[in-house]
Amino acid sequence: MVRLLSILFGIIISISSFAQDRTTDLMPVPQSVKSTGTHFYVTKAFTIGIIGNPGERVYKEATRALRRLDNRMGFFFEQGIIAAADNNKSASLLIEVSRPAELNLYEDESYKLFSDEKQVKIIANTDLGAIRGLETLQQLLSTDNDGYYFPGVEISDAPRFPWRGLLLDITLHWMPMDVVLRTLDGMAAVKMNVLHLHLTEDQMFGIESKVYPRLHEVGAEGNYFTQEDIKRIIAYADQRGIRVVPEFDVPGHCTSWLKAYPELASVKRDYELQRYYGVFDPSLDVTKDYTYVFLDSLFTEMAALFPDEYFHIGGDENTGVDWGLNPDIKAYMEKKGMKTYRELETEFMQRLLPILQKNKKKMMGWDEILRPGVPHDIMIQSWRGTKSLVEAAKNGYTGLLSTGYYIDLIQPTDFHYLVDPVPANTDLTPEQQKFIVGGEATMWTEHVTPETVDSRIWPRTAAIAERLWSASTVTDVDDMYRRLDYISLLLEGLGSTHIRNKGVLMRRLANSYDTKALEVLVDVIEPLKIYERNPGDTMYTVFSPYTKIADVATPDQKVAREFRKDVSAYCISKNDLLKDNILEHLYLWKNNHVKFMELVKKSPVLAEAAGLSENLAKIANTGIEAIGYMNNNASPPTGWKSKGMDITAQAKEQGGRCDLQVVTAIEELIQAVGE
Amino acid sequence: MVRLLSILFGIIISISSFAQDRTTDLMPVPQSVKSTGTHFYVTKAFTIGIIGNPGERVYKEATRALRRLDNRMGFFFEQGIIAAADNNKSASLLIEVSRPAELNLYEDESYKLFSDEKQVKIIANTDLGAIRGLETLQQLLSTDNDGYYFPGVEISDAPRFPWRGLLLDITLHWMPMDVVLRTLDGMAAVKMNVLHLHLTEDQMFGIESKVYPRLHEVGAEGNYFTQEDIKRIIAYADQRGIRVVPEFDVPGHCTSWLKAYPELASVKRDYELQRYYGVFDPSLDVTKDYTYVFLDSLFTEMAALFPDEYFHIGGDENTGVDWGLNPDIKAYMEKKGMKTYRELETEFMQRLLPILQKNKKKMMGWDEILRPGVPHDIMIQSWRGTKSLVEAAKNGYTGLLSTGYYIDLIQPTDFHYLVDPVPANTDLTPEQQKFIVGGEATMWTEHVTPETVDSRIWPRTAAIAERLWSASTVTDVDDMYRRLDYISLLLEGLGSTHIRNKGVLMRRLANSYDTKALEVLVDVIEPLKIYERNPGDTMYTVFSPYTKIADVATPDQKVAREFRKDVSAYCISKNDLLKDNILEHLYLWKNNHVKFMELVKKSPVLAEAAGLSENLAKIANTGIEAIGYMNNNASPPTGWKSKGMDITAQAKEQGGRCDLQVVTAIEELIQAVGE
Repeated sequence: MVRLLSILFGIIISISSFAQDRTTDLMPVPQSVKSTGTHFYVTKAFTIGIIGNPGERVYKEATRALRRLDNRMGFFFEQGIIAAADNNKSASLLIEVSRPAELNLYEDESYKLFSDEKQVKIIANTDLGAIRGLETLQQLLSTDNDGYYFPGVEISDAPRFPWRGLLLDITLHWMPMDVVLRTLDGMAAVKMNVLHLHLTEDQMFGIESKVYPRLHEVGAEGNYFTQEDIKRIIAYADQRGIRVVPEFDVPGHCTSWLKAYPELASVKRDYELQRYYGVFDPSLDVTKDYTYVFLDSLFTEMAALFPDEYFHIGGDENTGVDWGLNPDIKAYMEKKGMKTYRELETEFMQRLLPILQKNKKKMMGWDEILRPGVPHDIMIQSWRGTKSLVEAAKNGYTGLLSTGYYIDLIQPTDFHYLVDPVPANTDLTPEQQKFIVGGEATMWTEHVTPETVDSRIWPRTAAIAERLWSASTVTDVDDMYRRLDYISLLLEGLGSTHIRNKGVLMRRLANSYDTKALEVLVDVIEPLKIYERNPGDTMYTVFSPYTKIADVATPDQKVAREFRKDVSAYCISKNDLLKDNILEHLYLWKNNHVKFMELVKKSPVLAEAAGLSENLAKIANTGIEAIGYMNNNASPPTGWKSKGMDITAQAKEQGGRCDLQVVTAIEELIQAVGE
Repeated sequence: MVRLLSILFGIIISISSFAQDRTTDLMPVPQSVKSTGTHFYVTKAFTIGIIGNPGERVYKEATRALRRLDNRMGFFFEQGIIAAADNNKSASLLIEVSRPAELNLYEDESYKLFSDEKQVKIIANTDLGAIRGLETLQQLLSTDNDGYYFPGVEISDAPRFPWRGLLLDITLHWMPMDVVLRTLDGMAAVKMNVLHLHLTEDQMFGIESKVYPRLHEVGAEGNYFTQEDIKRIIAYADQRGIRVVPEFDVPGHCTSWLKAYPELASVKRDYELQRYYGVFDPSLDVTKDYTYVFLDSLFTEMAALFPDEYFHIGGDENTGVDWGLNPDIKAYMEKKGMKTYRELETEFMQRLLPILQKNKKKMMGWDEILRPGVPHDIMIQSWRGTKSLVEAAKNGYTGLLSTGYYIDLIQPTDFHYLVDPVPANTDLTPEQQKFIVGGEATMWTEHVTPETVDSRIWPRTAAIAERLWSASTVTDVDDMYRRLDYISLLLEGLGSTHIRNKGVLMRRLANSYDTKALEVLVDVIEPLKIYERNPGDTMYTVFSPYTKIADVATPDQKVAREFRKDVSAYCISKNDLLKDNILEHLYLWKNNHVKFMELVKKSPVLAEAAGLSENLAKIANTGIEAIGYMNNNASPPTGWKSKGMDITAQAKEQGGRCDLQVVTAIEELIQAVGE
């Protein structure tokens, strides 16, 4: 179809047929999607009706959904705040809910979504299911020449795992309210359902205690959530069908507690908040009765604040060093016949249990909490590998996976995507598999600030969300990346700063509005991965600037990823289109170094990346040579390959805590040149 | 100077001499700046020392200054939190303060800043002055081939006016904490010192009251500041030397109060929050004693929360209609011999005064509060013109100017910049002039959301800040615009979203990462100005989408402004460089329409701007023709001019509540063509 839109200067502007149907772009992929081919066109008259036995939650979310849709289409819908009176069965979108959900593990999140040319319907047992369906609907919004429409579908959907979480650490760098709220919006958009707030650390105590106010007064330097803040976060999360699980990490990782209340410490010394990152020795004295009096009061206060049934007590990385320095603790252990600090930790866990139980909380903690005698209703969060999770399941303990979902470690999306809490080759029985309830991405914030944190969470976490929601067979990496681009844009529209702040960081770094040469470099570098960025935890402190080249660089750079893919395909196919595309990149990189050095003049902070830029130009030049030989079926001069490999070897060196992501592709090109 | 940096592929990369000295880039311009030519180079060893008798404020601000500098230079300064022990007189930056300030009107904000090659010194009577000096220092940070440096200066500075405010309305659209805090950071950067929070309106009651909780529970739909939030805002502002003045607007603009407490109303009816914008009739019944009991309790609660000496009671736009509908009020007026509603308003003001006085507050309000018998310590905020301000001053009343500083009205920066609270031609005596204490920019939020509000505040408000701080003789508009570009970038680095969110809005509007064709159009359009955008207040409601072309368009578009300037210069000079630059733009605009229509296909919401895009292409074509004739000294065909003027007349039509900003320039080109 070709339509005549306008005649201008005698030139006919013709608009060819266009359609962007989103049925196959959903993330997470629903359990079942059938496309029926109809179109429901949205107009200004669009309305939402709700029937059945819904709760407050779905009215608020439906109102929000209406605003979100209108923000994209700009119709000025007439409907305002959706309430019980909005129960018109012929509304454009009809939501039918059987009962309000309890926001607990295992609650029903299933929904069905039908649309034809006349109406869209979301039908769910619980409002939670309806809320998940509303997110699917947001993603379904399609366009063609006739406007905005919802494609005809029959969707039947439910999550594979009931625990799809994100740990947000607000202590290693303070993450204020707006970060938490926009993170919740993003989580809801990809159907995640647990926000795990890591609230206390060696570096700070990030929540107000009215019982022990020195915890936040002395332990937080002004940055902490008030109890009113926490209530707001919980209400905001609840509306989106997201549980909030608090973590109070004991008996290690507690220097901030000890600065505030030194009487809790295993060793008498002047405690100051930790300024470096890593694992420290300060530890609660778990042999003193006072410690339990304190924890009882504090946990009782906090248990009342957080309605969730789980209460995370950390339990990880207690070194035992400070226990060893205290003769009283040693005497206590001897008296009790304890040989190892693990035994003392076990006793500690066992003494915490009744405190949580009387507050109607189930204990959650890191691998370390799985000890002899702990009850079967605890939840184990595995950070040390799947092995402990599998063992726990075999012994009838519930657990969830975080190993493989450490998004702070800058690994590529497909790495996380292919980690499965219950891999296809598991030796667990189907009954045992049920003890593995899902997973949690972990956003530790050593090396991010509120300005950069979103770029570490999104869009990669959307792929983890899909792993935890969709069928285990949904594993096509290329298709995941294709859909990720769309979801990433939607996440930005919801408030995530992962795209926009890249420009902010670049303009500050370049000391200029013109950041082109910097962008060319940033597109092909990533921050050092795993724990390489901060070797031995000696380089960065809480005062360090996180505004440098390694902070604007993001994980899983698309330009680099697609270049590597193109090169691999070209080495096999020798396809001319691929060749031209590869050469376009190579010339861009080769020519960029001079421009980059002009930027360095304006902004000396960029000097640390000069080596990366120069190496990029050098390997690009080598790549151009390689393609020249391949294209002409020519042999390179003697020594060319080894010289090329020297150049790529050098280009693997880090600069500004980043490394180039296209070196292996150039090596592939070099190796593909015939001798 | 040319330095050899690197040899790459036999190409010498030479870096020519570079220096970007910021001494002449400051905004506001200090009262006195002497450049001495030295350079203080910043290194990792940079430290701050504080001596004298400073307060807590300056330690916190010095700590923040250190982090901000390091965020730009990336040195990993070793100094952490600056405290009393940091009193080293040979610190890189030495701050000397004689006393902590009282955060009141007329407090001393003066400072001196000296730098030579060995040290930077800020000397101030109060910590407030030191904080202003620290902001000057941030702006002074310069670069050259040898790195970052502070240029040698002798600055002596103090504000012209003691009240340099910004009104932030959080009611017409809810503005959450992060908006308020980043606005405070921006205000501090340009030395503004009063945040006026407009907290209550017909549409919502935006602050928690513990005395009358229905005010926020019923009047705010979940969006309000808790008292803890307010304390945080005040503390954050205090640290930056900014006063916070609350406004509780009575007796009109109070529908939200009446929904919560209908017994306060002049007319018995079912009150609902207003969903449209404008002036409404609901009004407090000011003849009932209960109203004063209520206001006494509420204002006493709020007076305790806000430490500032001024308390803004609004007082504007009370229509009197509802008073007229109430026989009891009419009877009351008759009994008291009142002929007009103005007299009743006067009595209302007089009855409010003792409530404020017993709470040690001075009354502040809009022009309307200046009534017979009000005491001389009130503060009048003029929104209706300078006339009332001048009259007030002649009668010994203090006042400040907001007329001309309504930044919500989308006027260009230079318009606001040239509005002076005490114009050069004033007939006020020097003594009378002192009653005019400054001005306030007003950010009414009918037509902005948290996503767009910064683009209305910044960078234009920086020019208003300069008007209120710098000498009255600082009026060079070109120089203001030159400096504004730099300040705008610094403001973004501090957290303002005025640049970054443009991309967000464009990507959402374009439904795509590729927004180039949209950007070309957006660069030359602005939202309709003054009150044209929402004629008769009938078009927009609080539920309307503010994500459309008029929301991504910003005031005072630079591309358009510079194009107009180039055209004017070219019509006089016929300069070839100007001609080429003009033609580059004209061809870009002419060719853009086809590309823009491709975007419209993907995103029908853009269709409303198709006319603008087409008109832009048409006038660009006409402009190209005009330059052709001028360049060849040729006469156009008969009727060409009138046809051209028809085209430009058509191009003045609005589209999507925006209009083109280059039409007059094209008209100028047409008129410049010889017949």
